[in-house]
Amino acid sequence: MADQYAHSGGPGRPTDIPVIRWEEPPEGPVLVLLDQTRLPAEEVELVCTDAPALVEAIRSLAVRGAPLLGIAGAYGVALAAVRGFDVNDAAVALEGARPTAVNLGVGVRRALSAHRDALARGGDLREAAGAALAAARRLHREDAEASARMARHGLALLNELLPGGGHRILTHCNTGSLVSGGEGTAFAVALAAHRAGGLRRLWVDETRPLLQGARLTAYEAARSGMAYTLLTDGAAGSLFAAGEVDAVLIGADRIAADGSVANKVGSYPLAVLARYHHVPFIVVAPVTTVDLRTPDGASIEVEQRPGHEVTEVTAPQVPMAGTEAGGGILVAPLGTQAYNPAFDVTPPELVTAIVTEEGAVSPVTAEALAALCARSRQVTNS
Amino acid sequence: MADQYAHSGGPGRPTDIPVIRWEEPPEGPVLVLLDQTRLPAEEVELVCTDAPALVEAIRSLAVRGAPLLGIAGAYGVALAAVRGFDVNDAAVALEGARPTAVNLGVGVRRALSAHRDALARGGDLREAAGAALAAARRLHREDAEASARMARHGLALLNELLPGGGHRILTHCNTGSLVSGGEGTAFAVALAAHRAGGLRRLWVDETRPLLQGARLTAYEAARSGMAYTLLTDGAAGSLFAAGEVDAVLIGADRIAADGSVANKVGSYPLAVLARYHHVPFIVVAPVTTVDLRTPDGASIEVEQRPGHEVTEVTAPQVPMAGTEAGGGILVAPLGTQAYNPAFDVTPPELVTAIVTEEGAVSPVTAEALAALCARSRQVTNS
Repeated sequence: MADQYAHSGGPGRPTDIPVIRWEEPPEGPVLVLLDQTRLPAEEVELVCTDAPALVEAIRSLAVRGAPLLGIAGAYGVALAAVRGFDVNDAAVALEGARPTAVNLGVGVRRALSAHRDALARGGDLREAAGAALAAARRLHREDAEASARMARHGLALLNELLPGGGHRILTHCNTGSLVSGGEGTAFAVALAAHRAGGLRRLWVDETRPLLQGARLTAYEAARSGMAYTLLTDGAAGSLFAAGEVDAVLIGADRIAADGSVANKVGSYPLAVLARYHHVPFIVVAPVTTVDLRTPDGASIEVEQRPGHEVTEVTAPQVPMAGTEAGGGILVAPLGTQAYNPAFDVTPPELVTAIVTEEGAVSPVTAEALAALCARSRQVTNS
Repeated sequence: MADQYAHSGGPGRPTDIPVIRWEEPPEGPVLVLLDQTRLPAEEVELVCTDAPALVEAIRSLAVRGAPLLGIAGAYGVALAAVRGFDVNDAAVALEGARPTAVNLGVGVRRALSAHRDALARGGDLREAAGAALAAARRLHREDAEASARMARHGLALLNELLPGGGHRILTHCNTGSLVSGGEGTAFAVALAAHRAGGLRRLWVDETRPLLQGARLTAYEAARSGMAYTLLTDGAAGSLFAAGEVDAVLIGADRIAADGSVANKVGSYPLAVLARYHHVPFIVVAPVTTVDLRTPDGASIEVEQRPGHEVTEVTAPQVPMAGTEAGGGILVAPLGTQAYNPAFDVTPPELVTAIVTEEGAVSPVTAEALAALCARSRQVTNS
């Protein structure tokens, strides 16, 4: 079961409570999650004492973001094991909580394999539970390390492209600690610049229709104490025209073999603006985002989301993923049809660099990406 | 006083009731307004029987949009005169209802002058009231005629630039009958194309932060029976990339002598996208929008609007102009600073043509604009 655990900070003032953590109080081990459905209005933690509570937290989007879901799934298996529940039942339930979230299944299976391997090696249930927990912790640590490496490579690139420091960086959607076991992708680079004293300002696109920029990235920026300013997606053009943007940093949902980048809708217009104003456009994503089986941008299938995300506005507590039918305040005439692609595709010629945990690729070419992926596999397999 | 008058159409289904009309029922003359604060959810008419009721309607934004405010102001003076109230008091109150709305004062003074001139010529109060009403009707008709001429010139240009017909037009903000005595500016051109069977689809940018596209332009499009689709401002890039936009049509708040166009924020990114994709970017505005005393884009002062328009979302009934402090649902952390310029500036080299009631200017140069303004003054003075 899940309880509300802590209620931190003043109303709406972000603190630095972790997004996910394993705790072992006297009553028994628990997984504690920052409830993302309550952000940015409230910081409330959810305490999961068993896998069904975590399944519910995943379904309600209290925990979300691809890498973070994988880590949560792995901890969920460990939680079932440590508390003596059926590990296979827990794994099936967790994997089914959000069937399209690939990372969730990967994380669940990783902890499950560790559990099975320990039993196969002749270990008892306690040892197997320990192995599952160790696997979850390893995944968590690896993700945090990948974030740190992306941040390091990204910062080096920024300093090379913009030697003066005092960067004013524009970002879109949500790419920080709320989606990651560490500090994220594009946001982690901005954070590294901030810590190095080199970030003058983070410009945060609100990211319509679901406002991940306003709701989540502004929250991450406030938490980390950096100077940030929120803007509507359409106001970015004015910033470029005024010479107020030194670089664009975004994440990626998928990168095709030719270097085409699928990311949250609204990224492509930023790439065109960046090119028109001779500003670097930098994509930060783990190597696993590169999908060599997708040859080019045209081969990327773009999900069309429900129109009510555009024709209605909803309060923050109501769905971030917006999959249920409406429920918000209608802001367009009844019957209005909306065009609502989930993401757009930026061609490689508009991307200055792709930064991964294995290093940066610039210029972005199919050959350079393939070499990076090959190098990454060697590292993983060694 | 003002009454609710008519409640037309089904819930949220637009009809074709006029935005403003003078009526003379047995109880005496009235000015009837479509209450724009209730759109798009409800079509409610406000009946003004005196100037104070109209002042209240202007203050509450029940009637808005530069040319339409001028017409309303002129009718307001006529209403006071016809009903035997003090015309000068009415004029002062109406002009002060929205002090920064230049057109409002112009319209008020035009009806007031007609009233005074009639008295000066020896007419009685009844004749003077008739003159004020005639002046208001003339302003209304002139504005409608200017819309019609802009539509004609704009359609001719569209057909010249895109000879195949079947236009897919992207527009931003609100430029139709809700801001005009006629059918507006950019929207009027799209409407002319629709009536001529040449409009395949109107793409309607929602226009954050105040959602004039979703709330008002989608309503105008639905009213006129054209095929239209709403989108977030950031999704326009995907439409350009997919080759789904044949032309961009927008209005203008001010045009500098060099042809720089100030318009609702989010217009400039469309101009950059249009250029990158070789799509015509057309500005439609009356000649009075050209301000020859403003030499260039850099000389245009851009109003910064309150941050709460970005950090909070509000229901449609709540302020379209958003001048009151907050009151909406907070969607960003408390204390978040927002960059919220009211408009942006598009340089002349990105504008394919400026269409006015006196004809189109293309390419856009200072010389061509000056010649157009000179021609327009000759027409006005003749």
